[in-house]
Order: sequence, then C-alpha cells, then structure tokens
Amino acid sequence: MRLSFDEIYQEIKRVFIKYGLPEEKAETCARIHTESTYDGIYSHGVNRVARFVDYLKKGWVNPNADPTVEKDLGAIKVINGNMGPGVLNALFAADQAMELADKYGIGMVGIKNTTHWMRGGTYGLEVAKKGYVAIMWTNTEACMPPWGAKECRLGNNPFVMACPGTDKVPVLLLDMAMSQYAYGKLQVLRLAGKKLPFPGGFDKDGNITDDPGAIEDSMRIMPMGYWKGSSLAFMLDVLGAILTDGVGAADLNAATKGSCGGCSQVMIVIDPSKITDGTAMKNTIQKEIEYMEGAELSEHSSGIHAPGEGRMSFNEKHDKDGIFVDDTVWKEIKGL
Amino acid sequence: MRLSFDEIYQEIKRVFIKYGLPEEKAETCARIHTESTYDGIYSHGVNRVARFVDYLKKGWVNPNADPTVEKDLGAIKVINGNMGPGVLNALFAADQAMELADKYGIGMVGIKNTTHWMRGGTYGLEVAKKGYVAIMWTNTEACMPPWGAKECRLGNNPFVMACPGTDKVPVLLLDMAMSQYAYGKLQVLRLAGKKLPFPGGFDKDGNITDDPGAIEDSMRIMPMGYWKGSSLAFMLDVLGAILTDGVGAADLNAATKGSCGGCSQVMIVIDPSKITDGTAMKNTIQKEIEYMEGAELSEHSSGIHAPGEGRMSFNEKHDKDGIFVDDTVWKEIKGL
Repeated sequence: MRLSFDEIYQEIKRVFIKYGLPEEKAETCARIHTESTYDGIYSHGVNRVARFVDYLKKGWVNPNADPTVEKDLGAIKVINGNMGPGVLNALFAADQAMELADKYGIGMVGIKNTTHWMRGGTYGLEVAKKGYVAIMWTNTEACMPPWGAKECRLGNNPFVMACPGTDKVPVLLLDMAMSQYAYGKLQVLRLAGKKLPFPGGFDKDGNITDDPGAIEDSMRIMPMGYWKGSSLAFMLDVLGAILTDGVGAADLNAATKGSCGGCSQVMIVIDPSKITDGTAMKNTIQKEIEYMEGAELSEHSSGIHAPGEGRMSFNEKHDKDGIFVDDTVWKEIKGL
Repeated sequence: MRLSFDEIYQEIKRVFIKYGLPEEKAETCARIHTESTYDGIYSHGVNRVARFVDYLKKGWVNPNADPTVEKDLGAIKVINGNMGPGVLNALFAADQAMELADKYGIGMVGIKNTTHWMRGGTYGLEVAKKGYVAIMWTNTEACMPPWGAKECRLGNNPFVMACPGTDKVPVLLLDMAMSQYAYGKLQVLRLAGKKLPFPGGFDKDGNITDDPGAIEDSMRIMPMGYWKGSSLAFMLDVLGAILTDGVGAADLNAATKGSCGGCSQVMIVIDPSKITDGTAMKNTIQKEIEYMEGAELSEHSSGIHAPGEGRMSFNEKHDKDGIFVDDTVWKEIKGL
C-alpha cells in the first residue's frame, strides 16, 4: 500500500508510546523509522517496528534510559548507552561528535552498552546534511561465518561513510553491512523463486551457491569480497570494542539481548570546511561523480550510481505515489 | 633465492642513492621496502624498486622534496607532499598524526600532492606498534571499472586499519585494495596455468570469469563485494580529495605521473590508551581472536586468520630460511 509520511509517522509514534517510550522519544524514533522508509530502507524502517516493540517487551531495550558521558578527553568522548533506545543514543552521539568537530576539526565519540541503531545511514545523513564528513560503524552479535569457517562467529558490522554532495545528490552516503547479502534480501528472492545475481554464501555441504534458500538453511552467508570483508568485519568488531571500552561479538552473543543488544558504535566526524572551501569541495565531488558516471556501461548494466543516489530516486517515487509499505507489515503495526 | 635483511637493504639503498635520493632518505626508503619484503608483501617491497627508480628517472617523484605543513587546525593537519617520495611523506604524516593523537586523543593528517606510499600497511604498523589505532587510505588513479561499467574510472584506493594486538599477533593489520584481486596476483596465477579461486572480473564480452588472463586482457577487474566495494572505493576517492584539499581519480588520471602520482592520503590516528586500559584492551582482542578462530572450519578451509597473522608466518619463515626474493627481480635490482 501507499501512505503519507504523516500517516506512517503517527502510527509508529502511537505504537512506541503504547509500549513505554516517553512522548518526545517516541516522536524522534518514529521520525527516524519513517525517514528510513521514505528513503527506501524498508528493512530498518517500518519493517523493524514490530521487532523493536518485541525488544521493549522483553526488557532488552530500556525506553527510559538516557546516555551518559563517561569520558571527556579532548577530541574524544566515551558514552554509555545504558541499554536505551539505540536510535536516540546514536543521535546523541552524533551530536556530540559534531560538537567535537566544531572545536577540534575532528572528533570521535565511542558509545558502548547501546542497542540497535536501526539504519546506520541515519547518522551519516544527519551529520552530512549539516556539512560534516562521517565515518561510523557498529559492531553486532555474530551472524556470519568468518572466512574459512562454517559457524557464525563474526558480526556483519555495518560501516557508514558520508559527506555533503552536489545539487543532484545532496549527500554521498555509503551504508553497508559486511555480508554480501542481508537475510532479508535472501528471503525476498526465495519467495519470488529467484536466484541471487551473484553467489552469496555456501550451502550446508560447503558449496558456493546463488540459491537464497540454501543459504538461509545453512546460515552460511558470505562476507563481501570473501576474505577481505571477513577481515574488515573483524577489525570493525575489535575497534568498536576497544574505542568505546565496550565489548565485541563474543560477549554480545553471550548476552543474548537480541540483535545488537549491548553493542558498541564509533562515530568519527570531521568538519571539511576547515580544510576545503565549500564551493571547491562541491566542484571536486561533482567532477568525481561525472568522471565515474561517464564510464562506458557494461553489457548488463543497470547504470553507474554514486553512493546516495538510490535514496534520491526512492524519495522521488515516494513523493509522487506515496510511500510504499508492505501490507502485512502495516497490518502487524496496526495490530500492535 | 634467499637473502638476509641486510643484503636486501644494502642493495636497495645503493640503488636509491645512485638515482638521486640523499643518503638518509635512501636509508629510510630501503628499510621500508625491505620490511615489506620481510613481511611477505613482495609486490610492494623488492618487486617495486625498479618501478620507483623509473619514476625518479622520469621526474615523477622528486627525490629532494620535503613535505610542508599547509594547515594546522586543532586536531587536523593538511600537508603538501610536494611530489616527494611517497614513503617519506607518509611516514612524516603518520608521525604528525600520532602527535595530534597524543594531544587530542584523535588526530587526522591529510596529505595531498604526494606519490605512491608503496605498502599502505607500513603506516598502520608504524603507529600500531607504538600503541595507536590507525584508519588510513590513499586514493589512486582509475584502475578498475566502477560497478555497472566496463571502463576503468575508479581507483582501487587501498584502505588500512590497524591496532595493537596480542603476544601472538602483535599488530592487527588490515591492508586491502578495493579490487578483489591485484593484477600481480592475476599474472602469477596465469603464468602457473591456474584459475582464480573465485571470479575476479569480467572477460571482454562482459561475462564474469575466474580466468586471470581473460581479466588481464579486458582490464575489467572486479571490486571486492561487487557494488559494495565499488561504492566504498568511490567514497575513499572523494574523501581523500576533500579531506586533503587535493584531487581525485579524474585529475590523477589526467596528470599521467604514474601510479598514485599526485594522490591524496588520509591518516586518522587514535590513542586507545586514553579510552581503555592496556591490559583490558589486550584481553578484549585476545577474546575476539579466540572466539573467531574457534569457529568450526569449513570443508575446504585453510584456517581462520585474524588480520595480521599472515605477516607473522612470513616473518617466521624468513627468519628460518632467509628472505625470499624472486631471482628475476633481484637480477633487475643488481643491474640498476
């Protein structure tokens, strides 16, 4: 179905208040979930509302907890998320990181003991819209086998990079998990009777496969870039833990507080206006986009896209036709 | 053949002095090339000496240029590499970034107008051995088609993450280009009549292939993780340019000063001792390594390895048998 921004927002807000979030917090969380949906990231927008409510019910997220600054060390702050709503904790951390960047040019905030931040790109967008550069990541519980293994012992540790863009693509935004495909994508393709466009994991006998169902059965999704993504995921896990005085995948798994319950996030924010004049920066980015997108297309190409362009085309479509929401998902939210 | 560290070092030093590097600079560069070789990164160690000399001869690298600090802004410095030797510029930048980290907890150095830094991992190692965390990258000329294209319009932009490790793996070190395979690897496998273990690019008709020769012919190497590595490479290119007031792939290609001639590098260095106590940090890292490496192995596994472990096994082998140097490569260096 197609809904307006406000219809989605109001409904999510109602649900969040019902399950214990104070009104102002419910409003912010509902806005973020709705914005993710508007940007086409359904998986972490409307589609995550029911799971977040489930975590509130189980006590895995404390709706009343506020983040506390534990260390304030020059251009670094370490924050304890106190198991409060991950979205609110991460927005707080991003604000603090921007303040540090104002003061020092670059700032880092490490937040530990927090919960799922939903769409990582939210915080990249938040700072890049205000003119900053973002390098951010979260660690997660183990959900992917490291390279060479069949057992899930590595997080998919989403990594975000963002910066101001051009008139056409106002924010350059990369937001990617370390697995080649998300389980949500595997499910969608399996239900549609389709194969993956490229191999995305191993079946239960260890054969590389493009069959989404076989990977769902084996739980052997593949790191992006094989051994490369596996190593990057491990570094993000470890650096997430040590730069926040927090924990990594081993302890997150032991805690069994759902996806990302007790996780750590690192937010590095830089003020590029201290380095490059705004017009020069925009011209450089414009030049790089045009150069890349000017390449001769490959045989089966669906176009060459700068990171963050996809978001704009979802926005356009949603502005025209209303925001797409899956019928089943909407029914579930209405029933909460 | 097998040589000692000193035999390799002395010979490279002789060559570098002969082609114009002042003695002290030649010593530092020779040490770095020898260390990369000792760590098993032959491609950017002994195997790169002849090409560096070629760049000196062509005037693409100025052996006498020193880096100059152009902007000094709180926890950020912007440095002009003045087209001097990339290794020396990058070591200087890493030193400056460590100084900033001492003062502010985190520091960033952007260096523009520099030349090839050889092995990116060198600078990660340099800072991690001293107890710091490193996030570093370089942009490069276009050498890989962006996702959806057949034409090289994107750099492979190596990305480095490093931190102190454990007794067994003293430095956790990730050093990866954004292409799934290096051209050097394709060549080695082609000459050995072997296929790639996984598809690494497209042939000239656009078919995905594991035939190294077909990819060398088409020049259509593949980004790691397909569209994911392509987007990450683009962000690294753009952020490299804007965080250094430098240029990206479009201008690097136009400059035609060889690989990385005029490129930009970003070095973010963090002092984790301000956040976590050293013993706690080591314990966390130990726990994460043991957790990951304790996973059940896959059917065709060659083991599960923490980033930086490979280096240690090369060191061990080289300590025992002498450092491996390809006969042809050594003959070429001797002839210079």
